[in-house]
Amino acid sequence: MHIFYQPNLLSTDILLNEEESKHCVRVLRMKIGDEVQLIDGKGTSAIAKIIDDNPKRCLLTIIEQTTHQPLRNYYLHIAVAPTKNFDRMEWFIEKAVEVGIDEISFIETENSERSKVNLERCEKIAISAIKQSKQFWLPKINGVKNCNQAIKELRNEGFKLIAWCETDVTQNLHSIITSSLHSKITNPPTHHITIFIGPEGDFSKTEVDNAIANGFVSVSFGESRLRTETAALYACIATNVLLAK
Amino acid sequence: MHIFYQPNLLSTDILLNEEESKHCVRVLRMKIGDEVQLIDGKGTSAIAKIIDDNPKRCLLTIIEQTTHQPLRNYYLHIAVAPTKNFDRMEWFIEKAVEVGIDEISFIETENSERSKVNLERCEKIAISAIKQSKQFWLPKINGVKNCNQAIKELRNEGFKLIAWCETDVTQNLHSIITSSLHSKITNPPTHHITIFIGPEGDFSKTEVDNAIANGFVSVSFGESRLRTETAALYACIATNVLLAK
Repeated sequence: MHIFYQPNLLSTDILLNEEESKHCVRVLRMKIGDEVQLIDGKGTSAIAKIIDDNPKRCLLTIIEQTTHQPLRNYYLHIAVAPTKNFDRMEWFIEKAVEVGIDEISFIETENSERSKVNLERCEKIAISAIKQSKQFWLPKINGVKNCNQAIKELRNEGFKLIAWCETDVTQNLHSIITSSLHSKITNPPTHHITIFIGPEGDFSKTEVDNAIANGFVSVSFGESRLRTETAALYACIATNVLLAK
Repeated sequence: MHIFYQPNLLSTDILLNEEESKHCVRVLRMKIGDEVQLIDGKGTSAIAKIIDDNPKRCLLTIIEQTTHQPLRNYYLHIAVAPTKNFDRMEWFIEKAVEVGIDEISFIETENSERSKVNLERCEKIAISAIKQSKQFWLPKINGVKNCNQAIKELRNEGFKLIAWCETDVTQNLHSIITSSLHSKITNPPTHHITIFIGPEGDFSKTEVDNAIANGFVSVSFGESRLRTETAALYACIATNVLLAK
């Protein structure tokens, strides 16, 4: 069944926006009486029937609603310095959403190559990825914030890691998560994990020191030098592998 | 220092091919006396000095050679059904090489959407990725082979997994690797792990049954439905997270 994203499923009758209406009626050639699935990105899905197949204002009526529990027993927030070539970030968003992530932030660091991101485009990719991977929860995506400011705001927030290439001062992700965190993960109470991923030129020593002073633990992803978007996805998959039910 | 791939570092004088010569002399504007790093993709690197900066036949002489140990204490082979849009496979190759992989195979399955791959292009991407991530070992990349034939040929080869979406008959990757494999990983003896990743339409029941009859264990990557290339990279990163030193 075709899936449409509709952030508000509170009323019985649902009007698709112009883009979704066109997709439904013109591209998929759906007609009055056909059924679609609606998801609100906040854990609710619905089966709805088309009652007006207008290609600009397609109207649906909800037949049944289902509430879904979150798939994960942890909350994962990855904050990443956006790459110059934004395709690489879009790719990260798509893949991280498929695997499972709750919040994505963009940070401006001393060595950043980009300070602006198109949040609307990021959200479109995330919506497409939850549809593709049959999920019901849309991650929160935040605009660019100064790295040190973001560190400060997160100082009282759960378990925090900063990925850094200087391996002599860092620990392996597996050992950190297994020793420090695994025992604290309980079900259903969620556990809040934040991982900071730096730009191609890495975080500065000042940024890492500031993170550590605010309760972050520095972590290494092994001896291979990963690109920013690879490191960000590595963090997402590693957390999933180590902590998912 | 700029890195050049040169599969044969046995002689003292090294002639770069036309493409690499052009890149070295025309693009990077390197001259006689300048030094570069050479890697052979088989664990050897060398520092070499330019003795003739001819833009078509750049000649170098090796100053010193270093032998590098493999980064991993396991051997990872991922066999994947190539996607219709091959960009997605190229992306998988780049990311898997960055993270660490020893062998990539392409398999033709009942539900495959592609039966041909450009191996030369795949190798170029892998070479670029080992340069980027500062590695010294180039993975082996094999052309397309029939899935059942590949299963048969691997029947006596180490620990083998087949990823499948039918979760009721599969096990979680973490528990399989932790319980069955972790205790067997020793250093330095390598352990051979093969993971089969199916096409968008998944493996057929016959293919999965055939794999299981040949010693494969079926595995699930969780409740989210991952795209082929995401599942392949998930397998690579998961193995790295769970087994890397």
